[in-house]
Order: sequence, then structure tokens, then C-alpha cells
Amino acid sequence: MATQVNPPRGMRDFLPADKARRERVLAVIRAVFRSHGFDEIETPVVEDSERLHSGLGGDNEKLAFGVMRRALTTDDLRAAGDPIELIDLGLRFDLTVPLARFYASHRAELPPVFRAIQIAPVWRAERPQKGRFRQFMQCDIDIIGEAGPLAEIELLAAAADALDALGLAGCSFRVNDRRILAGMLNHWGVPAEQHERALITIDKLDKIGPEGVAAELAESGIGAEGLADALTASGWQLLDDPPAWLDRDAYAELLALRDAVPGADMVFDPTLVRGMGYYTGTIYEIAHPALGYSLGGGGRYDGMIGRFLGSQVPAAGISLGFERLVDLVELEEGAHQASVALLHDADAAASDLVALKRELLQSGRAQRVRVERRPKNTKATLDRLTEEGFTHFAFVRADSTLDTLELRSLG
Amino acid sequence: MATQVNPPRGMRDFLPADKARRERVLAVIRAVFRSHGFDEIETPVVEDSERLHSGLGGDNEKLAFGVMRRALTTDDLRAAGDPIELIDLGLRFDLTVPLARFYASHRAELPPVFRAIQIAPVWRAERPQKGRFRQFMQCDIDIIGEAGPLAEIELLAAAADALDALGLAGCSFRVNDRRILAGMLNHWGVPAEQHERALITIDKLDKIGPEGVAAELAESGIGAEGLADALTASGWQLLDDPPAWLDRDAYAELLALRDAVPGADMVFDPTLVRGMGYYTGTIYEIAHPALGYSLGGGGRYDGMIGRFLGSQVPAAGISLGFERLVDLVELEEGAHQASVALLHDADAAASDLVALKRELLQSGRAQRVRVERRPKNTKATLDRLTEEGFTHFAFVRADSTLDTLELRSLG
Repeated sequence: MATQVNPPRGMRDFLPADKARRERVLAVIRAVFRSHGFDEIETPVVEDSERLHSGLGGDNEKLAFGVMRRALTTDDLRAAGDPIELIDLGLRFDLTVPLARFYASHRAELPPVFRAIQIAPVWRAERPQKGRFRQFMQCDIDIIGEAGPLAEIELLAAAADALDALGLAGCSFRVNDRRILAGMLNHWGVPAEQHERALITIDKLDKIGPEGVAAELAESGIGAEGLADALTASGWQLLDDPPAWLDRDAYAELLALRDAVPGADMVFDPTLVRGMGYYTGTIYEIAHPALGYSLGGGGRYDGMIGRFLGSQVPAAGISLGFERLVDLVELEEGAHQASVALLHDADAAASDLVALKRELLQSGRAQRVRVERRPKNTKATLDRLTEEGFTHFAFVRADSTLDTLELRSLG
Repeated sequence: MATQVNPPRGMRDFLPADKARRERVLAVIRAVFRSHGFDEIETPVVEDSERLHSGLGGDNEKLAFGVMRRALTTDDLRAAGDPIELIDLGLRFDLTVPLARFYASHRAELPPVFRAIQIAPVWRAERPQKGRFRQFMQCDIDIIGEAGPLAEIELLAAAADALDALGLAGCSFRVNDRRILAGMLNHWGVPAEQHERALITIDKLDKIGPEGVAAELAESGIGAEGLADALTASGWQLLDDPPAWLDRDAYAELLALRDAVPGADMVFDPTLVRGMGYYTGTIYEIAHPALGYSLGGGGRYDGMIGRFLGSQVPAAGISLGFERLVDLVELEEGAHQASVALLHDADAAASDLVALKRELLQSGRAQRVRVERRPKNTKATLDRLTEEGFTHFAFVRADSTLDTLELRSLG
């Protein structure tokens, strides 16, 4: 056969060093989230198509990989008449839609206010490009059942502490509220049915500036004189003398957030939009001064759970952009007291070698032992072992025992 | 909407307690495998259809969920002419085919003998039944590049130590060799092209007995006089005076395995078959005296890597049946020095509550803190918190501080 052996387009294999690094970063994030009182859950990687395409996932719905409910050969499929009917599952494109479905299913078994951790992969069938993959990890926390700003403050504090634990100092949160954006658009005469279109344009403010936004709004037939000027007003000063278009409820909640997470730089940005259609209140994005992209974000989505449950439940969440974080973080592997490579002669018996390995582990003299054939080129092998995190090695002959074994330091 | 909110058929949600238990068991398995010198890798959950259906996965190939390479709406699909052409990915049905593909792709970046850990979900579109799921976890270790019994001994020793660490004492390994089965069939005149059919029948020995096997073989037109009697010969005694049909290479390797894993009960069973078509040498299965089913198994599959790589590389692996293990294991959550629930009055400020949580964490007085509204029914809430693993609680008023906080023991 000897066919092409790469992973599917836009997806990645992880070699041992990468995999270990990713798991270390995930363990830190998970531990901080748990320390803040959140509990991890898990849902299947696929959901029924109908649920994935119920209008809650915004543009991401279009990116769900279709999955067939049954496994059929191509011949079966052709015989099945309309194979399209068989594609009624999909790989999840985010963790929020599955969480809403999970909560609706298990509400009776969960605490009155449920704080969820989800650390798991998602899939999007988009054109692969640098830093954008078709399978990637998301690290989400969500609070379901808390309508007040306690939810946002807990989420932002947990995210801030996770970034801190990862050594990513200096991050800031840009915060805004969907109701402020709506109030702004209403004030400048943009009719409700044009809000979504207008928000898509305002979302480009960073790239095209206020004049660009004004021009694009005009092009779209959205009359909004004065709106472009309003977009330059920014920061907490705005709240000192709040303009008429500033939603009063959102105003009160933003004030509550302002200084609620000591150590985190909280920036109010009335032009922050965030793409997802399901946000109903506060929205936030994690920024790093050295980076031109966000490290995560989230917001309040009070309407979504109700779509599954039939009754309204408030909810808010934040998602860390793991694939971006993991490239920034330098986390050394926990020091092994002794990670030993046994380099053995060809005539050493296999059972003796494995017995030696287990004796080293059971006696506590080593926490990790690898058995390898003694190489011709010792230097290259020792270099590789050092890179792999081994701290010691020993040459093993046919008659070696735990007592005669001479452990030598590496590196 | 308020639609049906269950997970897809045959798949499961995991609530916090279940998820935590599963992660604890996985952490133990992973730690033991790592201590034995294996390294964890990861591959995407989907593989190209062509590779999943290359004849290496045995019957499981028929169970691969088909996945579309592109995300298309139903209308797009209908317009696409032949949508079957678009189903060219599949969810992996095991971790061995992806490992072979991974190794062929990355061989140059891996040590000469590569010891892989894969702990990850797989999917099979089979009829869901008790204890059988359409998404489930596998815990595999494999050694690629080692032709001798060192591979099998390391695999079995690592598996034995993992079971031991999980508190599952008394497990035994049933071992056999595909070459012994082939020699037996040849000796009793079963032509090579009937071997697969005959092995499927012999695999039923436990259920239908030697007479049943003889009858089914005869029914299939497989003449094998005397074979049924041979099937009753069993155990290591057979090796004391090896019969003519006993493959000599397999014989030598089995002898090497016999006492190589002290503490593990090694049972030679010349009728052990194991279903997968790809095994070429030793095969083994983990049995528990109290259970009527196996807890895992594996074998040598020297031919598979070559199918991807174009040159032969020896390989052997073992897979722990995680979904069965996890139900047997009692692993208590690591004792939290203090896991604190803050039960607050309605008028306590959200920012004060989160500040208190962080102070408790940062001062080391607590390792986990959950903020909850003070309930009407305190007793029921304290019971639930105890079940959730909390060790302390405190009532928080609007004016509470870290100094005035009174932590009380739970349970």
C-alpha cells in the first residue's frame, strides 16, 4: 500500500514532546478552574444535526462536519436511495451548544447554579491556514443559573488566575455589553433588522477605522449619522458622564465589573462586538499587549438554554484560546527525581531487563525507566535521551543486577 | 424549540462525579505507562476513509462512522450531484490503525524503538447494548521496532502494574500465538484459505465446547478430524512435551514469557484466538477471576506498519478495556486539604465574594472554593456539598472578611 500517510487536511498529529507540553498546560488550566469551584463534564463529540443547526451557533453552524448515523459501505449508500437522509449527526463546532443541550438533559442532577468546565476538542470544516486548524482544543468555563454579575466576575477571575498560573502576565480584558451596542444603534436610528449587519461592520473597526465603518454602513444603506463619532468615544470615562444611548442596566453591571478582579486590567470598549449571535449581555475578550489577536473571550447568553429547556435560564461563559496559549507558554516538565534509560547489551535477557525496570520503579530509585538497546553511537543517543527528559542512564550487561547497576547523570 | 435533549444514540454525557472518576482512573493508567518508559502521542479523531478501510481493522472497519470532508447544507449536498463522494473521512474505530499511519508519517522523528501511549476515544456504529457504547475510551500501549519478546514482556509488565495500581489484584493473562493456531490447523489438514473461517469457530470454544466446535467446523465443510481433541489440550504442560503441530518459534517465545512478569498469572491457552485479523504472532487477553469478560488484550501485528510505510517494522501492543475497568475500580478523590463552599447572603457584593475566594486560594487556606447563595434548606445543601467532595463551608455576610470568616467542617 504505502499510501500517503499524513493526517487529514488541517488536522495535526502530536509527537511525544508536543503532547506532553499540551497536557501540562491543560493540567494547569484545569487545576485553576477546579480551584475556583468549577466542575468538569464531558459530552460526546457528535450531536444530532438538528441541534447543531438550530441557529444558536452563528456562522460556525455552517462549519459542522456532517457525520452519518450508520456505518455503510459506498455500495450500501448508493442502494440506500437518498444518502443525505443518513447524515444526521455532526461534529460539534463549539462546546456551548453541547453544554446547553447537556444542561437541559441533566438539570435535575446538577446544583442550582452550575459551574461547568469543558476541556475538549471541537471541529470546524474551514479552510486551513496558519494557526487555524480543523480540530482544536477549547477550554471553557460556564456558569448557568446566575443572572447577576457574580457570574461574570467569577469567570473573569478564574480566567485571570489561569493566565497568571501559565506565566502570561500583563493580559487585559476588553469588556462591553450587547445592550450597549443595541442602545447605540437605536440612538443613531439604525432599525432593529439592520443591527446584525451593522455589528458585522462595527466589528471591523480595528482594521478599517471609524471612517471605514461609516463608509461601509452607508454602502449597506444603513443611515447612522454620528455613529462613527460615537465609536471613537471609549474607555471608562464614558461611564463618568454616561451618554443617553448607554443602556442603564448594562451600565450598572459594567461598573460592578470595573474593579472586581484585582490584578486584571479591565478595559471598557463600547465598540467590542464579538461574532457569535447568541450573546445577550456582557461580552469580553482577553488581550495580550504583545499580540495582535485575542487569547479568548466570552459573554452572557441568557437565551440559549431556554431554546433547549423550554424555560429561560441565565448563563455566561468564557473560553480560553488554547491553541494560541500553548504556543506562548513555557512550562518545564515537572522534575523527575530520576528518569532512567537502561542501555542494554544484545544478550541481556528480556525478562531480566523488565525485572530491573520494575525493581527501579518499585524501590523508588526511579520514577520513569525506559529500556533501550545499547547504541553504536552512544553520544547521539544520550543527547536524544536528555532532550526527552531523561536524567540518568546505565549500561546493562547480561549479568547486571539492581545492586551492580551504575546510574550515571545525563546532561 | 425545547426538543429532545439526550446525547446521540449509544453515546453518553458524563456528570461531574463520573467525569472526575474517569479522569482519576485515566491518570493512574497514564502515570504507570509513563513510568515504564512509554510516551503519549495524539492523532486526529478522523482518518481518511481509504486508510480506515484498507483491510487492517478487521470487522471493525464496517463500523466506522462516515464523515464528510466538507460542511455542506442539505441543499448544497443535493446540488453536489453525488454526495457519496464527499464522505471521505471516518471516525477512527480503534487506535492501532491511526498509530500505524502516525508511525509511517513521523518515523524519522521517533526513537529507534518507539513506545507509544494512546489514551483517547474511538467510535463504532454498532447496535448499542448494555456495556457497549458508540463512543468509548481506549488505553493502548504499543512498541514499534522491537521484534523479540522484550516487547511483549514490557507490554504485559506495564499492563500488570497498571491493573495493580488500580487495585485490581488477581488478574491473569491468557496468552497464545497466531502461529500455534496456524500450525494446529495445518496439522489437521485445514487448508490455508479456510483458516479464518475455522478460527472464527474456534473462538466460540468457551461458549459451545469442543463438540460444538467440531460440529460447526464439519458444517462449514472444514474437515479437521482430531482438531477438537487438540482443543482440550491446554496449559503450560503442552510445552513440556510439545506436539508436532506446535510452531517452534512461537514455542520459544511463549517459554520466554512464561515467568517473565513476576506477580502476573500467565496462562497459556492454545485455543485463544482474538478477533482482529491483523495479529501475526503472540496474542494475549486480560482475565479477571470474578468476571466473565476480558479486561483488555492485544498481540503482535508485524505486518501492519509495513502497509503504510512500505517496509516491514515489527510491532506489538496491548489495550486496556477502560469502560469495563472504570466500573470496577474504587479510587477515592485525592484528599483536599480544604475544599470550601462559601454560602453567601443575597446582599453580599459579587466582587467581595470573588475577592474572598481568591484570598482563600492564594493564602493556601483552601485548594478549592465554590461560591453559592445561602440556601433555604441548609441541610440538603450541606449534604450535596459533602457528596461533591467539599470539606468545609462558611456563611458569608455582606461585611465578612477573610479574618472574620468561620470555616466549619462538613461531614
